[in-house]
Amino acid sequence: MTGRYVVLGPEEVALLPPAPLRDPSLPSSRPSSPPKRRESNQIRSSSSFTSFSPSKAMAGIWLLLGASVLLLLSSGRVSSHRYDTNGGLEAAAERRAENLHRLDTIILLTYITVLIVIVLTAWLFKYYRFRFIHETGVTLIYGLFIGIVLRYFNIGLLESQTFDVVTKNDTTVNEPPDYLRLGVNGDTGKTVTFTYELIEGFFADADKTKHNERKIEQKSAFSPELFFNVLLPPIIFNAGYSLKKRSFFRNIGSILLFVFLGTTISCIATAVLMFVFTRIFGMGFHFQELLFFGALISATDPITVLAVLNEKNVEANLYALIFGESAMNDAVAIVLSATIDSYTMTGDTVDLMGIMSAGVNFVEVFVGSLLLGSVIGCANAILTKFTYISDHPLLESALFILISYCSFLIAEIVHLTGIVAVLFCGICQAHYTYNNLSVESQTTTKRFFQLVSFLSEAFIFCYIGISVFVGNNQKWNILFIIFALISITIARAVYVYPLCELINIQRRPPIPKNYQHMILFSGLRGAMAFALADRNTATENRQIILAATVAIVLFTVLFNGGLASWMIDYLGIKHGERANEEERTTTSREIQDEVGDYTTSSSHSGVTIASTPGHNPWDKAFLPRKWYNFDANFMKPLLTHATPPLTETLPSICYPIAKMLTSDRQFHSHQPLRMRYDSESGSCSMSNSLEQMLS
Amino acid sequence: MTGRYVVLGPEEVALLPPAPLRDPSLPSSRPSSPPKRRESNQIRSSSSFTSFSPSKAMAGIWLLLGASVLLLLSSGRVSSHRYDTNGGLEAAAERRAENLHRLDTIILLTYITVLIVIVLTAWLFKYYRFRFIHETGVTLIYGLFIGIVLRYFNIGLLESQTFDVVTKNDTTVNEPPDYLRLGVNGDTGKTVTFTYELIEGFFADADKTKHNERKIEQKSAFSPELFFNVLLPPIIFNAGYSLKKRSFFRNIGSILLFVFLGTTISCIATAVLMFVFTRIFGMGFHFQELLFFGALISATDPITVLAVLNEKNVEANLYALIFGESAMNDAVAIVLSATIDSYTMTGDTVDLMGIMSAGVNFVEVFVGSLLLGSVIGCANAILTKFTYISDHPLLESALFILISYCSFLIAEIVHLTGIVAVLFCGICQAHYTYNNLSVESQTTTKRFFQLVSFLSEAFIFCYIGISVFVGNNQKWNILFIIFALISITIARAVYVYPLCELINIQRRPPIPKNYQHMILFSGLRGAMAFALADRNTATENRQIILAATVAIVLFTVLFNGGLASWMIDYLGIKHGERANEEERTTTSREIQDEVGDYTTSSSHSGVTIASTPGHNPWDKAFLPRKWYNFDANFMKPLLTHATPPLTETLPSICYPIAKMLTSDRQFHSHQPLRMRYDSESGSCSMSNSLEQMLS
Repeated sequence: MTGRYVVLGPEEVALLPPAPLRDPSLPSSRPSSPPKRRESNQIRSSSSFTSFSPSKAMAGIWLLLGASVLLLLSSGRVSSHRYDTNGGLEAAAERRAENLHRLDTIILLTYITVLIVIVLTAWLFKYYRFRFIHETGVTLIYGLFIGIVLRYFNIGLLESQTFDVVTKNDTTVNEPPDYLRLGVNGDTGKTVTFTYELIEGFFADADKTKHNERKIEQKSAFSPELFFNVLLPPIIFNAGYSLKKRSFFRNIGSILLFVFLGTTISCIATAVLMFVFTRIFGMGFHFQELLFFGALISATDPITVLAVLNEKNVEANLYALIFGESAMNDAVAIVLSATIDSYTMTGDTVDLMGIMSAGVNFVEVFVGSLLLGSVIGCANAILTKFTYISDHPLLESALFILISYCSFLIAEIVHLTGIVAVLFCGICQAHYTYNNLSVESQTTTKRFFQLVSFLSEAFIFCYIGISVFVGNNQKWNILFIIFALISITIARAVYVYPLCELINIQRRPPIPKNYQHMILFSGLRGAMAFALADRNTATENRQIILAATVAIVLFTVLFNGGLASWMIDYLGIKHGERANEEERTTTSREIQDEVGDYTTSSSHSGVTIASTPGHNPWDKAFLPRKWYNFDANFMKPLLTHATPPLTETLPSICYPIAKMLTSDRQFHSHQPLRMRYDSESGSCSMSNSLEQMLS
Repeated sequence: MTGRYVVLGPEEVALLPPAPLRDPSLPSSRPSSPPKRRESNQIRSSSSFTSFSPSKAMAGIWLLLGASVLLLLSSGRVSSHRYDTNGGLEAAAERRAENLHRLDTIILLTYITVLIVIVLTAWLFKYYRFRFIHETGVTLIYGLFIGIVLRYFNIGLLESQTFDVVTKNDTTVNEPPDYLRLGVNGDTGKTVTFTYELIEGFFADADKTKHNERKIEQKSAFSPELFFNVLLPPIIFNAGYSLKKRSFFRNIGSILLFVFLGTTISCIATAVLMFVFTRIFGMGFHFQELLFFGALISATDPITVLAVLNEKNVEANLYALIFGESAMNDAVAIVLSATIDSYTMTGDTVDLMGIMSAGVNFVEVFVGSLLLGSVIGCANAILTKFTYISDHPLLESALFILISYCSFLIAEIVHLTGIVAVLFCGICQAHYTYNNLSVESQTTTKRFFQLVSFLSEAFIFCYIGISVFVGNNQKWNILFIIFALISITIARAVYVYPLCELINIQRRPPIPKNYQHMILFSGLRGAMAFALADRNTATENRQIILAATVAIVLFTVLFNGGLASWMIDYLGIKHGERANEEERTTTSREIQDEVGDYTTSSSHSGVTIASTPGHNPWDKAFLPRKWYNFDANFMKPLLTHATPPLTETLPSICYPIAKMLTSDRQFHSHQPLRMRYDSESGSCSMSNSLEQMLS
């Protein structure tokens, strides 16, 4: 094969190893991953006729959106539900099944098309580096648009029969029964009984008389159950799973203060302010209702503002503070609102005992959920450590996903909060289980949750937009909305500044004033607030609260989200180039953190504990340091293959147990380390030169 | 760093590149991927105390199953639906929402727990190389077990009120209306109207009087819509997306004959046989009903038997035949059954014109769906080729998944068959789009669909088991089931042997007798047959058909699936070592095929077309060869970055258009190839030696 080009037949080509064959003619156009961005930029700059202008691309997107609307308009009219008697009950069932299928398909296609348009828009925004409106905002606007189309264009009109009924023997009912039974005279003459179920979401619709047709707009308003059971868990899990642990834990004290004290203050302050407003303008709201509103509206949303912070490459501590607060206060808001809700239901007046017991209940539920989630995460770590399931990445990934979801469901079953459990399960899984997974499963699970979380988020924001026109459980009250916007801003200011001052007594470096302003400004509301408000809309006041929540989400996402980038510049917050000096070490630590905790633990855990505490990022406070040592000496050796094994870190009396809990890999991998550690010159020179060669 | 071991602080460690640092102390225990299996075997053999016995593991699994049953039993009783008047309608709504949430959570947890147990079992089976029962079989058995528990242990008893109602003014209704409205006297005295919806799946339940309580068993029997819209599409798409193209296309003629002619013969033969049987024993079945049964039961299932064939490493042609048939006859069965169903609904008698028009309709729907799916797949290829969305793998993967799902929904909307569309969309995406994706998206999409498809399959088989005890739309008729089993076996034999003989006239090498027996034996039924039967169970005959389908699925999966491995040995079918000689070239071709079509096209497409046709695997038939040339010269250069670009393959008159449709990468990457091609000695020696070095 010297100096000659040989035409290879397919068999010969096949005998060559596949990896180097991959693209032999492209010089290096598809390297494995990191330099790709640069390379594609190169192509971009040199491209001439295959490049395309923003206007063309936007035109394409609008064409797509228009085409889908046309498709809907033309095919949407489900009209085959004719009441011909041909074929009797079987044919009727067939027609009915077909209609329902068609309706479901139209709704699904609508949502999927919008999601496609959202993805394309998001990409264009990234591509042209738009700053003034974020994808989330655009998603909301698309949702509004689709809502208008669904509402005013009679799409998917399902002709249907509605009958007014009374109970047999005219029994009086004071509460809607769950099921009704109606006798229908079939074709064969005998009466067949059919069962009807109470529709959720159409609860207490007093003036339904004008609606004689059930439309797609009503069908497409889906149950809040879907939010809580299907859409939210992956988002929250992903928040925990992709948490940048190091900067998060460095700021854990401040974050926890914000989350617990801050959210509670915000809840109460909002309720008090709204109570004053509503009293002045004579709206009939109970204080408990407003407290419920305060609780749900205190859940800030991490999505939009974090995307901006990420893009601007803002300083790591500010990022950690805003992320930590918005990721965890969802959990507090959900527990708070549930506590208030159950308290409201008993109908008692406010007394000290009640508040005390609510507080105790709150702590119980929160801590219980936290422990449950962590225990399930650790159980999965044990499972993946002591079995060889990592030989089958598909099964391993499936198990990982299922167990993570299980933590949510089990918490809900035992009357705890699933969202809190799934958040801490995510953190534990990232900290321990992730290291036991096979390389395939590591990437698969990371990307799976990223993907599902991204799609769920897009779907929720789109749905929030749609719900404005489609849902019939929103009652828009402009006055209430204006008051609410004022109240939540004041309520947020009321806890952000004092708590920052409180934190600054201890904290080095302190949180500067411009960071405090930015934290205040980052109080966007999103999916969780909407989901909590949408859950129960039985009374008119609750429908007003839902409408106000939607309005607040729209306003904060569009206004605060759109101006976040400008605000960072205006407040003079370190970002990009300027923040880089401090951030570089953090980022590389982050990477190291991400790449695997083996590195950390195997290369210097046995050493660091005794040595240079100056290099330890955990040295700031007593408690974190204690936890770090416990984690490195006990938790990691127990739950992962990290070294030193338990046989060395535990007191020698526990040796038999420690030996049982140490994996072969820990024993094997620890030998070389010990050797190097003991006789610091012989074999290590080899491994070091290898490292040098590879680097 | 010579000859000294240096303790690195975290910052220094962080500055080293992450890849080689990953596990510096483990000699080579976690290489990137291929040798992992062997390595874990090593550990396995040397492991002593951390290894575990099968009995321990099975005990663990049963413990988990038992614990989940206990959890269900203890927490399942949803009893808070007390009818106290405290709190009025709002509190009632709150209680109702809470109960529904609890019930949904219990059902979800049941399914998720079973899925976890299934994953663990599947892994144990792989680990201990069980052969006599496959995971799918075990999944069915778990499903049966859960069904029994749900049915006989009163889990999740939801106390609820059911009222008998009559229409206002006593209007007679001949067909169940879609909605009922009932007035309820609220706490404030005024009447509030509530809307009730007809429950699907409880259609035509004549004797429901004894059921005064609605139980979880009824709630957990979910709508067939979920099968068709959510669970099936990813399974079918994955079948297309992970298709081993080369051996599939080599056998395309035989496969298509099996799929179209075979399925139709099977449908008719089953119907005729069943008609004879039912007439003899005096069961009142219309021929159309039996034809419908014949159509749905002709859909064979690829999952179980392919897993066995894969494990046994069976000869590639047999694998392709069985896979091709079972993957594509789902599509034919669905179109056939829909055609028969719509024909049944018109209620006409059988005539020639009717059969003709049904045939034409069948072809129209099939070809239309095929084209639609392919066009959408190609559109996505164009989109990914001419944009730089691959810079954002997350968005790219999301788009890929959404567009693939869209093909299903659009086909359903325009009255075509979504399953056919999504299958061919999958094949197109694998053939074209896949090559345009970023490396991240390639693995993400592959694994995402593998994962989702695996979970969907497990869920469906589990649900088939559960449905035996939980669903109330199955009517078990032992005689019918026995006849059905006999009929489907005969009907399969009636087409497998004659068609094989027909194929063997042309085919070299012919399909040997033992292959034919194996194809007959591989006629397992699964998800698709069940879903089709479950769709409409309005009449008693349809309920008998559903029960028979479930019985056939259970029987074939447990019996045929369990004995498949033994059957391969018994029939003396080449597998493992013996099949290796022939297979090696195929497999490596497969790999090459998988790794990227660039290789094929860029290294010998421009050359092969003119040269040695003996090496071309496509040379068997005229049509495939024509298609291959068209694909290499037009489709691939148009839809992917493959070379030679269109500017060279199209006639020179089309140059301006061809230039527009050629990406920069195609231009750039084609230069070196052309150079090598023109002056066969200079630069190619370099690239060859590079290849040698790397191999």
